[in-house]
Amino acid sequence: MSEPVIIAVDAMGGEGSPNKVIDGIHYSIKKSKDNFFNLYGNKNILLELIDKKKIKKYCNIIDTTDFISDDESPLTAAKKGKNTSMGSAIHAVKDKKADIILSAGNTGALLILSRMILNMLSGVEKPALAGLWPNKKGINVVLDLGANIECKYSNLIDFSNMGSALFKSLFPDEKAFVALLNVASEEGKGNENLKKAYNLLKENFNSNYDFFGYIEGNHIMDGSANVIVTDGFTGNVALKTAEGTANFIIKSLKKSLTKTFINKLSMILSRNSLKEFQSKLDPRKYNGAILLGLQGPVVKSHGATDYYGFAHSIEMCNKIIRGKLIDKIKLNLLKK
Amino acid sequence: MSEPVIIAVDAMGGEGSPNKVIDGIHYSIKKSKDNFFNLYGNKNILLELIDKKKIKKYCNIIDTTDFISDDESPLTAAKKGKNTSMGSAIHAVKDKKADIILSAGNTGALLILSRMILNMLSGVEKPALAGLWPNKKGINVVLDLGANIECKYSNLIDFSNMGSALFKSLFPDEKAFVALLNVASEEGKGNENLKKAYNLLKENFNSNYDFFGYIEGNHIMDGSANVIVTDGFTGNVALKTAEGTANFIIKSLKKSLTKTFINKLSMILSRNSLKEFQSKLDPRKYNGAILLGLQGPVVKSHGATDYYGFAHSIEMCNKIIRGKLIDKIKLNLLKK
Repeated sequence: MSEPVIIAVDAMGGEGSPNKVIDGIHYSIKKSKDNFFNLYGNKNILLELIDKKKIKKYCNIIDTTDFISDDESPLTAAKKGKNTSMGSAIHAVKDKKADIILSAGNTGALLILSRMILNMLSGVEKPALAGLWPNKKGINVVLDLGANIECKYSNLIDFSNMGSALFKSLFPDEKAFVALLNVASEEGKGNENLKKAYNLLKENFNSNYDFFGYIEGNHIMDGSANVIVTDGFTGNVALKTAEGTANFIIKSLKKSLTKTFINKLSMILSRNSLKEFQSKLDPRKYNGAILLGLQGPVVKSHGATDYYGFAHSIEMCNKIIRGKLIDKIKLNLLKK
Repeated sequence: MSEPVIIAVDAMGGEGSPNKVIDGIHYSIKKSKDNFFNLYGNKNILLELIDKKKIKKYCNIIDTTDFISDDESPLTAAKKGKNTSMGSAIHAVKDKKADIILSAGNTGALLILSRMILNMLSGVEKPALAGLWPNKKGINVVLDLGANIECKYSNLIDFSNMGSALFKSLFPDEKAFVALLNVASEEGKGNENLKKAYNLLKENFNSNYDFFGYIEGNHIMDGSANVIVTDGFTGNVALKTAEGTANFIIKSLKKSLTKTFINKLSMILSRNSLKEFQSKLDPRKYNGAILLGLQGPVVKSHGATDYYGFAHSIEMCNKIIRGKLIDKIKLNLLKK
């Protein structure tokens, strides 16, 4: 059996940490023994927690004296840097002590510290934050989700190369179809950046992915394209709007379906189907955003997720390393 | 009783027209007699249709020899211009023969012809397309939905003034809260345009609306702000992404709920609640986008909607005129 994937975990970041982190690791170990965890954080607390969960064999604790809280500015985080659980965990990837870093902590801090500590991949101008999003046939990779408020056309090309590599490392048996998010689907529509990126993607043949063309917001979830490329402003608004819409509909539905006794009875009858429906849309299953473009992979778990969501981001870390994400990105960049 | 609102209707635009248009008018007349319709299109066809529906008393037909199809470019539309049903209907507003123009036809053509024929309101740099969107407490006005791919901060200020005037003309008893769509809610985040617009809206007190601040995509439907202001690219992507998400969820739900016999039975038990749920989210009820910033109001019905959706856009036209939209916009612009 091959060596396990070594994950450097910022054990102190996010709501309910470190308990949530350790519970997530515990849950993940029950499903798969293919990971080893380097835990960065308060040694005494962590030792007690892993002892209780009987997972000492899969973990190594590295004591850190400080951590970055959710309300600290990226600038403060940058100053505190190396002595924090987050900073030390990122350093572990740079120093080849771990394959990948995972944190549920402060997003702004994670972005800035990762860029400070890890080198950029040669040929990439700007890193991008990518996330997963369900579609009718499976799962989309969507990027950038907010690492870059403004983007040039060349950034969109990098995002296409990196996003398709991520898709292939997560779903090796499927073909990647890259689409540029736009206000219309016809060639010639959109801003200048999009038009330039469109022409380059159309002309520069890359055998590792197909170029689908433009895609409009209402077709993101169709499944005809599975790597959705856009600037960080638009991507962030689109993802959050989708989240807000989903919450709104599901809450309205629950309210309608529990109004009367008959409704409640029918809910019981449909329980299994409703469970299956909710499970498919469970955001915890899509938990984990990936910072692409650096020499080492960085995964951000949602700060507010629970142990189950955190366990899903561990699974994502494993797939990224086993799927050779960084090699795949390098290969795509060669074809630029 | 006051004079009815005179609506210039492009009777030939959109899927299933002119039948859908006449059916929509027929349905609308059953609900309210407060409108009179100037119908622009093929006289023979229209005459037969209104005769059959017995609505001749509420309509006047103006024969036009040409119309603009959905696949024609805005440039072709601009050339055909005045002799088309759409162009003639817009001219009726300019010539004060109608209060407002309504079309379910080609959006690009409607935007360009409206801008060519109708003058801009003094003080407005660019017109914007506004739409309605449900929220937890009621309804949002969202703009720009795609009239301007790129916007300056001063456009965002105009959109705030126009969007809040639209909100107040549609919902006179409610207070308008303007928010700028952004990737974060804290002051100081976002691009330069947003920061400049934020500072101006914060400082320039306007008693006709409150400034809520920034809003993120996941809070659009909270109801705490009800006039959501953004550039046309972001607004278009956000609206379409919300539509796509809603469709995806409702289809997944239906699939889950009809899987087994027990499920189907329980669907029957919940029928009324599910109907109420679907009715609340029925996009036909929010049908109608409004082009703001011109001397006359222009309403665009969704091309693919049916008679019921078209009737809702007629109701919107009535509210806009009865609510004195143009006067309200002028008043807001005075405070700039």
